[in-house]
Amino acid sequence: MNNQDTICAISTPPGNGAIAVIRLSGDKAIQITDKIFHPGDKKKLAKQPANTIHYGTIKDKDKLVDEVVVSLFRSPNSYTGEDVVEISCHGATYIQQLLLRVLLKYGARLAKPGEFTMRAFMNGKMDLSQAEAVADLIASSSAASHRIALKQMRGGFSEEIKNLRNELLSFISLIELELDFSEEDVEFADRKELKILVSRIYSIIHSLSESFSLGNVIKNGVPVAIVGKPNVGKSTLLNALLNEEKAIVSEIEGTTRDAIEDTVNIEGNIFRFIDTAGLRETSDFIENLGIRKTYQKIGQSKIVLLLVDAGDEIDIIYKSYRHILKQTSDDDKDIIIVVNKTDLLDREELQNKFRTSEFSFLRKKDMRVIISAKDQKMVHKLAGKLVQTIKPETHGENDIIITNIRHYEALVNTGEALLRVKKGMKQNISNDLLAQDIREALHYLGEITGDITTDEILGNIFKNFCIGK
Amino acid sequence: MNNQDTICAISTPPGNGAIAVIRLSGDKAIQITDKIFHPGDKKKLAKQPANTIHYGTIKDKDKLVDEVVVSLFRSPNSYTGEDVVEISCHGATYIQQLLLRVLLKYGARLAKPGEFTMRAFMNGKMDLSQAEAVADLIASSSAASHRIALKQMRGGFSEEIKNLRNELLSFISLIELELDFSEEDVEFADRKELKILVSRIYSIIHSLSESFSLGNVIKNGVPVAIVGKPNVGKSTLLNALLNEEKAIVSEIEGTTRDAIEDTVNIEGNIFRFIDTAGLRETSDFIENLGIRKTYQKIGQSKIVLLLVDAGDEIDIIYKSYRHILKQTSDDDKDIIIVVNKTDLLDREELQNKFRTSEFSFLRKKDMRVIISAKDQKMVHKLAGKLVQTIKPETHGENDIIITNIRHYEALVNTGEALLRVKKGMKQNISNDLLAQDIREALHYLGEITGDITTDEILGNIFKNFCIGK
Repeated sequence: MNNQDTICAISTPPGNGAIAVIRLSGDKAIQITDKIFHPGDKKKLAKQPANTIHYGTIKDKDKLVDEVVVSLFRSPNSYTGEDVVEISCHGATYIQQLLLRVLLKYGARLAKPGEFTMRAFMNGKMDLSQAEAVADLIASSSAASHRIALKQMRGGFSEEIKNLRNELLSFISLIELELDFSEEDVEFADRKELKILVSRIYSIIHSLSESFSLGNVIKNGVPVAIVGKPNVGKSTLLNALLNEEKAIVSEIEGTTRDAIEDTVNIEGNIFRFIDTAGLRETSDFIENLGIRKTYQKIGQSKIVLLLVDAGDEIDIIYKSYRHILKQTSDDDKDIIIVVNKTDLLDREELQNKFRTSEFSFLRKKDMRVIISAKDQKMVHKLAGKLVQTIKPETHGENDIIITNIRHYEALVNTGEALLRVKKGMKQNISNDLLAQDIREALHYLGEITGDITTDEILGNIFKNFCIGK
Repeated sequence: MNNQDTICAISTPPGNGAIAVIRLSGDKAIQITDKIFHPGDKKKLAKQPANTIHYGTIKDKDKLVDEVVVSLFRSPNSYTGEDVVEISCHGATYIQQLLLRVLLKYGARLAKPGEFTMRAFMNGKMDLSQAEAVADLIASSSAASHRIALKQMRGGFSEEIKNLRNELLSFISLIELELDFSEEDVEFADRKELKILVSRIYSIIHSLSESFSLGNVIKNGVPVAIVGKPNVGKSTLLNALLNEEKAIVSEIEGTTRDAIEDTVNIEGNIFRFIDTAGLRETSDFIENLGIRKTYQKIGQSKIVLLLVDAGDEIDIIYKSYRHILKQTSDDDKDIIIVVNKTDLLDREELQNKFRTSEFSFLRKKDMRVIISAKDQKMVHKLAGKLVQTIKPETHGENDIIITNIRHYEALVNTGEALLRVKKGMKQNISNDLLAQDIREALHYLGEITGDITTDEILGNIFKNFCIGK
């Protein structure tokens, strides 16, 4: 990418609307606009003060393109840190395209995905983790993901990393000073202090990287597998939860062969429901594939909804529960037994059969809910239980949560380097080896903030941005 | 609608994007924003000059909503003529909705469709035909519709109407003065001048209303019926023209039972292609319905493409042509005979069989093109002929063209009233009857610009706007 070019792009969502905004950034942003913009007051943008708004027409020579409002930002006080012009035009797709073509004709270049934000990073307007948060913010679709992205964009996370990195940097310079005086056996860096610092950093890094599993869940939704024997109403339950008919509901056994995924926002948390094929033994090859997928999906989920029929015997339910418990093999997953089709039993029968004492086999974290998916009865109670399941884990509003796998990997690498530093100090390894491990920790921390970066890293980060940001 | 309220809406297209703009308009626009906007320089918007841009955060009490850029416009120098604040936020749908909810919470009301533009009209920022042009501009999808809407929005059309109306107004006041002196047989209004004026206005009004058929075609596309016997390749031709496979192409006779419509932009002109069922006699009830539809569609079209097979005998082609000519019954429609499946004949055979002299039966305005839709051969030539067909009619770039049926009806009504004025003057009818007819013409002219309007007219106009404009 050439950072000398003046770039332009439609920054508002695609399609027709009342207005649309086209953004220009670069040395020639003002000069290019002045060639085609005819303001009401006839004064060139070049002579206007920064942070002002101007009304006028865009013309390609004699040909009128649109009546627009132009916002003028001047370097370094703009999003990118460069001169920026934002043209607000009438929101017809036709006009947006026409205006863009005119800008290209007069010397701008079409921006690549994320190029505005990349320039903001290049010009020191934000660090790399903040730039990444911009993309997360634009993609945020729940209260939790919005809060985390906003916090990260405002530097909450990289601030902490920077401070840790700086503390470590002051030590490495002392140790490297010692290397210069290696003949003289001096000690500038207090080893006791260093040990305390490394332990402290390690514990912070560790808890940050631990937060990733929650962060990932917040960003992508809590995976919930819906499991049960065929025809027990999995699709109906999914529909009841989604409150819309996305899955094919049918009375024929084994209809749901593909795992269908869908997300629903419950109290600001995204749940990603995974409907699966049934669990029964079958000789049908395709159905068997579905069952193998069921086990895979259970493995990937955080909560398993075991859906049973109100007509089922308790010991059958117990067996299914044990079956899943065996499949999950870790304590991480919550299992909720959902007794469905309660419309088939009368109230007394139901209360008697499914009283809590009958479910004493459940682990403490697991629970049972009684619903009728078909009639939407008590489905809200299940929704409440789902939220409850993830609540104890949820960090406080002000805790920092990692959502980005790149950060997670850098944090894990930092942690490993720090462990080597700790171990090395215990073993009294040479200063140059110690310095090397510290340098490595510094490197990985720097990767997060972008203090250390490569074109490849940058390319990977910004290619997933939308154009216009 | 309460025009005292402060209204707000998302003004950019729906969906996720880099940025989105939420617009507020009304007496409290600035006050409401000041409650939730925390600018970097800590200075209230209320104390900032108009046409300035401010960076800061939006908070609902302690809860951070987004980092935003706020544009400040002050009455009367804004789109609506009221105080206007435009908040440019990160373009996640989630954030747009959240921000909107916060604005509603702090005293704004959700804008109704077109309410911003309606206020602009109410506050005298534009007349009614200009307001209507805003909607047309946002919906414009071709060079021609864009040019016409832009011209109308900038007042080209209503300027002319206003001038005519003012000239007529000065006469009516003189005639009404005569009515006050009716006993004295005075003549303030020069009847000869009035006659000339009425004739001049009538001729302008007439040519404006005549332009509606072109205007309608530009706005909605030139309707082109594709007609031919079954299996001659209508769907293939449509696809070749659209260059995509939207119609079902099949070898089975009578596949295309429903009239399929699709539009294609050729050299800035929209053509609306109407594929029809075949023309052959059939006993199939559903197919018969299709054929009846074919005749309807021919009636609604401006150009008829008669698609024939290169294997067809010339006299069969002649008969089909006469058949359509009989159906169309007016001289308005152009018929283009398209000889298809030319891949079936060799070049010499083709040139011999379809030489121009064989088509001497064609009217001067009609023509024949030889193509192979299947191989996309010469389809561009057909496209060129289509453009040529509408070219002679196309007005000059600076001519005013009516695209709005409301304007068309008002112009026709004006014309009729003016004819009555002319006739009345010829018959020397009494001044009060003459004044009545002139008043009526004035009324209809006033309806176009909105000088005369009702809540019903306004309601009908603005209900079709998008929200946010």
